[in-house]
Amino acid sequence: MESEAQPAQRPSPRGAKFQRDQSELEFARIVAFSDGVFAIAITLLVLALQIPEGVSDFPETLRDQGPDFFAFALSFAVLSQIWFFHHRFFASLGQFDGTLIGLNFVYLALVTLVPFSSQVIGDYGDESAAAVIYALNIAGLGAVGAVMVRHAFRRSMVRTEVAELLGIGAGARGWLVAGVFLASIPIALISANAAEWSWLILFVVANLVIRRMDTRKRQP
Amino acid sequence: MESEAQPAQRPSPRGAKFQRDQSELEFARIVAFSDGVFAIAITLLVLALQIPEGVSDFPETLRDQGPDFFAFALSFAVLSQIWFFHHRFFASLGQFDGTLIGLNFVYLALVTLVPFSSQVIGDYGDESAAAVIYALNIAGLGAVGAVMVRHAFRRSMVRTEVAELLGIGAGARGWLVAGVFLASIPIALISANAAEWSWLILFVVANLVIRRMDTRKRQP
Amino acid sequence: MESEAQPAQRPSPRGAKFQRDQSELEFARIVAFSDGVFAIAITLLVLALQIPEGVSDFPETLRDQGPDFFAFALSFAVLSQIWFFHHRFFASLGQFDGTLIGLNFVYLALVTLVPFSSQVIGDYGDESAAAVIYALNIAGLGAVGAVMVRHAFRRSMVRTEVAELLGIGAGARGWLVAGVFLASIPIALISANAAEWSWLILFVVANLVIRRMDTRKRQP
Amino acid sequence: MESEAQPAQRPSPRGAKFQRDQSELEFARIVAFSDGVFAIAITLLVLALQIPEGVSDFPETLRDQGPDFFAFALSFAVLSQIWFFHHRFFASLGQFDGTLIGLNFVYLALVTLVPFSSQVIGDYGDESAAAVIYALNIAGLGAVGAVMVRHAFRRSMVRTEVAELLGIGAGARGWLVAGVFLASIPIALISANAAEWSWLILFVVANLVIRRMDTRKRQP
Repeated sequence: MESEAQPAQRPSPRGAKFQRDQSELEFARIVAFSDGVFAIAITLLVLALQIPEGVSDFPETLRDQGPDFFAFALSFAVLSQIWFFHHRFFASLGQFDGTLIGLNFVYLALVTLVPFSSQVIGDYGDESAAAVIYALNIAGLGAVGAVMVRHAFRRSMVRTEVAELLGIGAGARGWLVAGVFLASIPIALISANAAEWSWLILFVVANLVIRRMDTRKRQP
Repeated sequence: MESEAQPAQRPSPRGAKFQRDQSELEFARIVAFSDGVFAIAITLLVLALQIPEGVSDFPETLRDQGPDFFAFALSFAVLSQIWFFHHRFFASLGQFDGTLIGLNFVYLALVTLVPFSSQVIGDYGDESAAAVIYALNIAGLGAVGAVMVRHAFRRSMVRTEVAELLGIGAGARGWLVAGVFLASIPIALISANAAEWSWLILFVVANLVIRRMDTRKRQP
Repeated sequence: MESEAQPAQRPSPRGAKFQRDQSELEFARIVAFSDGVFAIAITLLVLALQIPEGVSDFPETLRDQGPDFFAFALSFAVLSQIWFFHHRFFASLGQFDGTLIGLNFVYLALVTLVPFSSQVIGDYGDESAAAVIYALNIAGLGAVGAVMVRHAFRRSMVRTEVAELLGIGAGARGWLVAGVFLASIPIALISANAAEWSWLILFVVANLVIRRMDTRKRQP
Repeated sequence: MESEAQPAQRPSPRGAKFQRDQSELEFARIVAFSDGVFAIAITLLVLALQIPEGVSDFPETLRDQGPDFFAFALSFAVLSQIWFFHHRFFASLGQFDGTLIGLNFVYLALVTLVPFSSQVIGDYGDESAAAVIYALNIAGLGAVGAVMVRHAFRRSMVRTEVAELLGIGAGARGWLVAGVFLASIPIALISANAAEWSWLILFVVANLVIRRMDTRKRQP
């Protein structure tokens, strides 16, 4: 590689940094692979809605699917937001390294678990264990996302011209998501349904707060 | 961003517009992600045809799958058309914004629901509730598609050289689809089968009408 | 479009031809969408191997899966070959039109049916009806593939510099596949197993014959 | 093709070599198709975790899923590593030929089998047959990967500037994986669980050893 030509880059014991424009195909493949996992995970959510053939009272069964539709809508919204974060984060990168690829795989593992967690709260929404699984899954996504952002900033892999656009918001948002979902675990142990509804409410509130923070930051 | 260099763009309280050529990777990822969801949803349709292992009379079971094949063919045709609309619509965009990404996610949520709705009319084609679900799903796709087109035109995000190619047809087509499927709901409440057959007939008729409109528009 | 600048192109009542290099994103999306459908269909083949949880004699059940593994291997080979044909065919195109996109959708519908047909011959390999379904599915792929090739040549959408590389081989191969699988239907009506084994044998023989034809053609 | 202009390339009876930069779309499609298969296979792993609706004791059932989560984590790690190898290998190619495409298909067939093998050790982890299937699947991936690397080096299809980066490590790693998993088969015949735990341990050890080899190689 032409790394000798760039003395500004500090060599790292944890592996080389790759310039994105010199490794465009590799970078594009990581992004495309991630997008594929996101797209499949988000589409697999629908499998939880399936109604077995030969049910005797169809309209009744359909009404009983209510919690499944709630889980589908919640998880679709969550994965959309998470994909959008991932999308903006990777768009902001000018470089990447092996650690980031590794973290991204942990992140994707948590993404592929969402259809499972979602099916679990759809089918066993009254069980505390189901709500705890979902909370841990989403908290994990928030935390690993925040760690990725911090790693990218620490190793100066974020392109300077967009660094402020991504800002501390991206990392803070990750920790906020992790905190909110971890905080809901004690609630889930008392009432799984209360935890599930609290996610929707906190999701909306958190979005409003962050949007306000973003707007304020942009003003001079 | 270089937005100061483009005074023609009116700033918006609802978020920045992104020039497609300045954010090509981001734009490409949204399109690729959408394509992934479409491809997976259209391929998952086949799961509704599955015949469990160990059925005693296989040829008999196969004949009973008739409605499943009808649902597969109808939904494949519907998703193909919808993908083709999405394909031409995004090809026509010169810019995009956060609202459009949000609308696109709602659109994709409705796309991922099609394998569910399709399985439902395949397995419970005689039930009014099944036909109503399918009608609502497709009507929703038509309506959200039309809203996306209107939003793109209002905020001048359609490239002028292709605007006439996309024309009012794209939006009108969306509302037509929404109207046709909403109109079939009363029919479905009386006879689910009548509604299902009416879709096929109206689908063919609507295509012929729109094709004629397109042809006339191109003539001087 | 800049079509006035190209008087050599005859206008068609069936819709405009698009220059690939002028509509690169659109063309790339069709190809990417097709690849997505292929990749998902080929990966869904594995679902037919699933062994339900809680089977009493696992090694015995595994041995009974023999036909499922046969179906997996056959269908993986078939879809690989078909993808490779699709890959070379689209690489050879310099232009495309609406008819080709439509034909491609019919082709993809047949591709998504392969996991179903494959599961059917895996689970009901002794049933003539199962072998007939598989034969019709693959014969359909051969025929629609050949029609696509013929359409592309007729409307001169194949790039001249690669036309000979694709040659008449691509179309002939499609008809050959269609013929072979249609010819196996009478065999299937007598013995489903005989038909299934004949596919493997004919598959190998046909490949050898065509490879020989290709080699001879390249020699001066 | 412009192959006459490149007398350095030796013609091969087994088919032409394609310059990657002259066939960029074809090369990109092979890579994209492979990525699609990887992404779908890795996401389908989650289906093995599914808990059927209507289980009486949910927390109990969840605890019984322990081996399924072990299988999910192991297989996600394995497929991640394998994808990463594939990613670096294809990034290193300057050319490709039909044999490589064929080998890649065999490789992808083994990739799509991983969700099956993974489900098998998750549900039947105490059965020797299950552990043997998993071991054969991963050994096969190691071996075919090593064959691909050797083929690419033999036919000089690896770009010289990155050949040392990929180094003999890539091939050696493949044979190491194959050896380790084949060696675990006798263990699996005595105790399936012992084999499964040995994979995790050897996986970690092998990674450490190879990382040390890589580090030493880079030093002058």
